[in-house]
Amino acid sequence: MAELSVNHLLGIKYINKADIDLIFETADHFKEVINRPIKKVPSLRDVTIANIFFENSTRTRLSFELAQKRLSADVVSFSAAQSSVKKGETLIDTVNNILAMKVDMVVMRHSSPGAAYFLSQNVKASIINAGDGAHEHPTQALLDSFTIREKLGDVAGKKVVIVGDILHSRVALSNIYALQMQGAEVKVCGPNTLIPRYINELGISVEPNLRKALEWADVANMLRVQNERLDYSYFPSTREYVKQYGLDKQLLDSLNKEIVIMHPGPINRGVEITSDVADSGHSVILDQVENGVAIRMAVVYLLASKIK
Amino acid sequence: MAELSVNHLLGIKYINKADIDLIFETADHFKEVINRPIKKVPSLRDVTIANIFFENSTRTRLSFELAQKRLSADVVSFSAAQSSVKKGETLIDTVNNILAMKVDMVVMRHSSPGAAYFLSQNVKASIINAGDGAHEHPTQALLDSFTIREKLGDVAGKKVVIVGDILHSRVALSNIYALQMQGAEVKVCGPNTLIPRYINELGISVEPNLRKALEWADVANMLRVQNERLDYSYFPSTREYVKQYGLDKQLLDSLNKEIVIMHPGPINRGVEITSDVADSGHSVILDQVENGVAIRMAVVYLLASKIK
Amino acid sequence: MAELSVNHLLGIKYINKADIDLIFETADHFKEVINRPIKKVPSLRDVTIANIFFENSTRTRLSFELAQKRLSADVVSFSAAQSSVKKGETLIDTVNNILAMKVDMVVMRHSSPGAAYFLSQNVKASIINAGDGAHEHPTQALLDSFTIREKLGDVAGKKVVIVGDILHSRVALSNIYALQMQGAEVKVCGPNTLIPRYINELGISVEPNLRKALEWADVANMLRVQNERLDYSYFPSTREYVKQYGLDKQLLDSLNKEIVIMHPGPINRGVEITSDVADSGHSVILDQVENGVAIRMAVVYLLASKIK
Repeated sequence: MAELSVNHLLGIKYINKADIDLIFETADHFKEVINRPIKKVPSLRDVTIANIFFENSTRTRLSFELAQKRLSADVVSFSAAQSSVKKGETLIDTVNNILAMKVDMVVMRHSSPGAAYFLSQNVKASIINAGDGAHEHPTQALLDSFTIREKLGDVAGKKVVIVGDILHSRVALSNIYALQMQGAEVKVCGPNTLIPRYINELGISVEPNLRKALEWADVANMLRVQNERLDYSYFPSTREYVKQYGLDKQLLDSLNKEIVIMHPGPINRGVEITSDVADSGHSVILDQVENGVAIRMAVVYLLASKIK
Repeated sequence: MAELSVNHLLGIKYINKADIDLIFETADHFKEVINRPIKKVPSLRDVTIANIFFENSTRTRLSFELAQKRLSADVVSFSAAQSSVKKGETLIDTVNNILAMKVDMVVMRHSSPGAAYFLSQNVKASIINAGDGAHEHPTQALLDSFTIREKLGDVAGKKVVIVGDILHSRVALSNIYALQMQGAEVKVCGPNTLIPRYINELGISVEPNLRKALEWADVANMLRVQNERLDYSYFPSTREYVKQYGLDKQLLDSLNKEIVIMHPGPINRGVEITSDVADSGHSVILDQVENGVAIRMAVVYLLASKIK
Repeated sequence: MAELSVNHLLGIKYINKADIDLIFETADHFKEVINRPIKKVPSLRDVTIANIFFENSTRTRLSFELAQKRLSADVVSFSAAQSSVKKGETLIDTVNNILAMKVDMVVMRHSSPGAAYFLSQNVKASIINAGDGAHEHPTQALLDSFTIREKLGDVAGKKVVIVGDILHSRVALSNIYALQMQGAEVKVCGPNTLIPRYINELGISVEPNLRKALEWADVANMLRVQNERLDYSYFPSTREYVKQYGLDKQLLDSLNKEIVIMHPGPINRGVEITSDVADSGHSVILDQVENGVAIRMAVVYLLASKIK
């Protein structure tokens, strides 16, 4: 039977196209499962999973928990204040303690880039990265591509623009890796101060004008803006941001074309996109959320089959 | 088979006497279930329920969670800081995201009156109001009436006085609707400053004297006083409140009659009632808590049967 | 069939040697269970357990939760801010409310010595003390002795030194009771200011010199130091503590003997013990954590069999 090339999901950078295909085929099956009256399968009755969130994230944690419960795994979750886990050794201690309780898999969100990788090198469990600082958020990128594939038939050859704060976004980086691996064309669009210097090294071009970017694109992924980041002296103010990079219905209608509008959530309505765009027929935002559960069931299921 | 006239439980105001009867008959059955050694039924294996508490409430949340687990539903719970959900649109986004994960039912507590109703108009899921500001708390009123019926045989014709801070109490309002619908006579008793102006429009009379109120009543529902509300210049001080509206053993004994003493909890012992009253044979406070699980099982079960 | 002499686990002081033997034999069985692919048994399908933690403790709470889930019990957990539960009566109210929801067993951590005992006298449920102030932490002492027995064949006749802040440690007191009951020799080692006056009454001698203590001992249990307690004027500074009571690899190697190094966790690496000691072959710290789940399954299982 087909299996993943990896024992962990640390980032899209660490997996390959065949892995993505396998995850998508498996997620197709689980998407059927969660749309049946009985949304559960007994597959992982023998697996114990710990969700460790060093940063708060209600929706990602709920999505993982529901995915795990629908696979019939035993689930324990906890949120830890960042302050109590300052040193790498202490992170290892925390996780080793949990593993000593016979936990098979750890889903972790952490503010430090590389935390999930570091853990995978130092503990004996399957690790899923649920976001490590500004580095990667692989299940988000997988559910984004899965949603594009669902709406447009395939990811290969599609034109995708990622709009907003590329610099601080793990969603952007994981999406870039995933989209390129699947043969999509990718551009980014956003204020100069929020585009990382390495963007050209990734083979990605920058389109500073939102209208031109949207005219080019089949898909626009409108990243969440951290309001607390804007209004710094060297960043645009929220008002300037909305004016140049916010998507409203007038702009959308004036394009007069089919375009898929994505957003990783939670939306700042009226900033990245207006309410009428979020709720329009172009928006696939709730499909993304639904697909998130199916993708996470697939990832958890496929990694669990490697530890048995 | 009999079913509820509604798809949500938003308040007692929105249901009718036949609904209450059906809920009570169903709760009779579930009360037997939770008193058996195996306190579970497999009824809702195919239902996923999210408990979303925008205000803290340990006991109501535990009561709903136990009710749901004993029906074998899949349960996810989260508490959200009020601050992050300021605008109505954001509340809808939050809940729509949860529903996109294939959640069938939402139990919500929120500080804004009307929040549950608003939600029911804007999302596709069965909504149970677990308290919306000073508006309604329907499962509390149902468990209160169920307890009166259990102790006195029937609610119709019984005399019930609700004592305390009527103005800020969702428990009072839901109880008034439920008791009137079932044919009980209702009076309220409390300081002028804590009686709402609309009380006469509801057909409720005010009895300012606690002794007289108790002499009249078959049942006294002693509301919890928010200590932080007292000691305002225009409210009575706690000391004055206790003197005029607190129930102690001496007063209770001097009545020399059968009377059922209720309290929605948590008790401020020595304020609304003294410890010897709370622990006396007149008190049905722990019956209320026990019946709360049975009532919530009934409500969840009956609403779930409408979404299948 | 053998059963415990008690209906609660309030402290080691309240149980006897036969109870410890029965718990260990039962834990032997459950340790096998949690090392099988399917780590669950259906034993407690009819038992509902509430974990009430008035003090935070991620690892003890997780260990109890996993133990309960692997016994197939229904589990509800909550953490309560100490502030809301100031008076004894209120603690009883809180717990009585939970019990009225048909909860069979309560696992409680509380900052007040005697809280678990007080509860057991006032409510109708089986109580497990998961730490009550500086008093007792019986499951920790049981898992410590179980680990010694596993490593050295028996506890009787073994020499055990407990190192560190004996004065404020519930782990120390429970260990002293458990070790003496099983016929071990016990010494304590630590700064004068952190040794309780009653230590001699317990028949325990103090060895102020760490090297001499380790030369004497078969087992060293290195207690966690509360950093916030050190650096008081009458306590040693952290630097002085490490110099006199910290265990590093150089000291360990210079002993040139077999010695079992224990720590109840979480470790302050570089304070009580250095990293190379924690991760050395002498350390059984992760065995303690693993055994903790088996011991807690045994305690919960044996107490549950008494309430049926």
